[in-house]
Amino acid sequence: MTTDLLTDAAPLADASHREVQRWRAGEARTATDVLAEEVPVALVYNGISHAVMLASPADLEDFALGFSLSEGIIDDVDDLLDCEAHVSDLSGAAVMQAEGEAAPGVLADGTITAAHGLTLELRVTLRCFMRLKERRRTLAGRTGCGLCGTESLAEAVRPVRRAPAEVRIHQSALGRAMAGLSEGQGLQQRTGATHAAAWCKLDGQVLLVREDVGRHNALDKLTGRMAREGIDPSQGFIAVTSRASYEMVYKTASAGVGLLAAISAPTALAARTAQAAGLVLAGFTRGDRASVYAHADRVLAG
Amino acid sequence: MTTDLLTDAAPLADASHREVQRWRAGEARTATDVLAEEVPVALVYNGISHAVMLASPADLEDFALGFSLSEGIIDDVDDLLDCEAHVSDLSGAAVMQAEGEAAPGVLADGTITAAHGLTLELRVTLRCFMRLKERRRTLAGRTGCGLCGTESLAEAVRPVRRAPAEVRIHQSALGRAMAGLSEGQGLQQRTGATHAAAWCKLDGQVLLVREDVGRHNALDKLTGRMAREGIDPSQGFIAVTSRASYEMVYKTASAGVGLLAAISAPTALAARTAQAAGLVLAGFTRGDRASVYAHADRVLAG
Repeated sequence: MTTDLLTDAAPLADASHREVQRWRAGEARTATDVLAEEVPVALVYNGISHAVMLASPADLEDFALGFSLSEGIIDDVDDLLDCEAHVSDLSGAAVMQAEGEAAPGVLADGTITAAHGLTLELRVTLRCFMRLKERRRTLAGRTGCGLCGTESLAEAVRPVRRAPAEVRIHQSALGRAMAGLSEGQGLQQRTGATHAAAWCKLDGQVLLVREDVGRHNALDKLTGRMAREGIDPSQGFIAVTSRASYEMVYKTASAGVGLLAAISAPTALAARTAQAAGLVLAGFTRGDRASVYAHADRVLAG
Repeated sequence: MTTDLLTDAAPLADASHREVQRWRAGEARTATDVLAEEVPVALVYNGISHAVMLASPADLEDFALGFSLSEGIIDDVDDLLDCEAHVSDLSGAAVMQAEGEAAPGVLADGTITAAHGLTLELRVTLRCFMRLKERRRTLAGRTGCGLCGTESLAEAVRPVRRAPAEVRIHQSALGRAMAGLSEGQGLQQRTGATHAAAWCKLDGQVLLVREDVGRHNALDKLTGRMAREGIDPSQGFIAVTSRASYEMVYKTASAGVGLLAAISAPTALAARTAQAAGLVLAGFTRGDRASVYAHADRVLAG
């Protein structure tokens, strides 16, 4: 995959400053806060617009790859032939950009104006593109959309496609992973508005963190990066700062990873899906505490 | 609007029990947790499937109404002529249900099996349906979907349609609202997995709370209920347990409400959208603390 990102020429800001009125004990002071940027990102496959997500404007190649894999649009990292990001107006038309300069629509502080967004022009193999077109054609008659590309109940709760690796870890690794994840949340520390997902070694050491204003996006960015780096998904697990919903379990299992640890609660559907997929699901993972909701025999003392 | 809900015959569970392995200080015990149910809910307008959302199976009429209003599918509560909920298999086909008995697909504890979901059959006025069909037709050529019905950048960040009411409140009302919201989160107290949105009087008294595994759904359920009850949106404000993203501001403003208070951080796009829409946006609203990110002059001391 080649990438050609406008961010080489003009870095996009993942956060910006804003004057706020801060109340403490009945008194207001003017202060300056750092707010996480949130940008509409259109994913266009071989010229056809597929989905728009509101996301943090960072790690866009990782996002494109992780989303394409978890949505089953591509089967393998090599199926994504090209990824080009550009600033576009809201009609999707690219705005002209002079060499080495910021694109129109990008302000001096690196933020994108409300009249603009990002378009990821993705080129996938002909086989994947024909399959995507066929999938869209068969759905077009009766349906519209919902979750990215989701128009039917069957699409919303798809069977998990890959049997994840059967990992076994010690309980202490969960706490270690959560501590490492917390340290890796640079954007969250500045803004308080983002979720994160981490790839952790089996002993809990955090190797990779991705952040986003959306928890699904953060996970897609992480698994996309893992795929790009050729990481073996059986050699670790994923930790996330959010609750564990069905989608989080689905995406983790789709990436071939065998354990998901969430800082907060799972839903019942997430627990059932994890059980069916052979995935270990831990919730309320904080310090030396955790609750294991599926395949609990694979979390060992120590 | 008439509603004909299967829940009259067989109440659906909003949570269920699950055996878990609970780790504390290096030791595991078997315990029973209460998990929030999460169910795929298809919204079908005049026979045409429009979107599928993963949601808590409660307050479905409120959800249908709030979603239809905030998505601009209907303009007014009277545009939704009928709302019928039924359990369906994943193809969307309704399962047969004997009078007074639970539908197949619903277990004895009121949970829906993984092979089933809910379908909301909605009937809207011809005018609204023609408009929806036209919107879908014009988008069908180049696009697919994304956010519910979202296929283009312009659809993802739509201009706010209604000027919200210009509310003014005292800062103490924010803390009061958050305390009341917390008390009203029955499902969250049992499961730890749900978000909530509350309609509050201008003095901060909480009048109405809706919960859901998704924060957008909780807000749609709340504004849907408000519309059903004919509540004047200028006479109060909305408080939510989540962060304030663009969508949360958009939905609040669309409901004609002039102030959104979030327990956590806003995004930059949310703050800019609130500013443009004339909506007061408060974040980090906890106890006697709050930060006001847009139209701060409308939050008064006291």
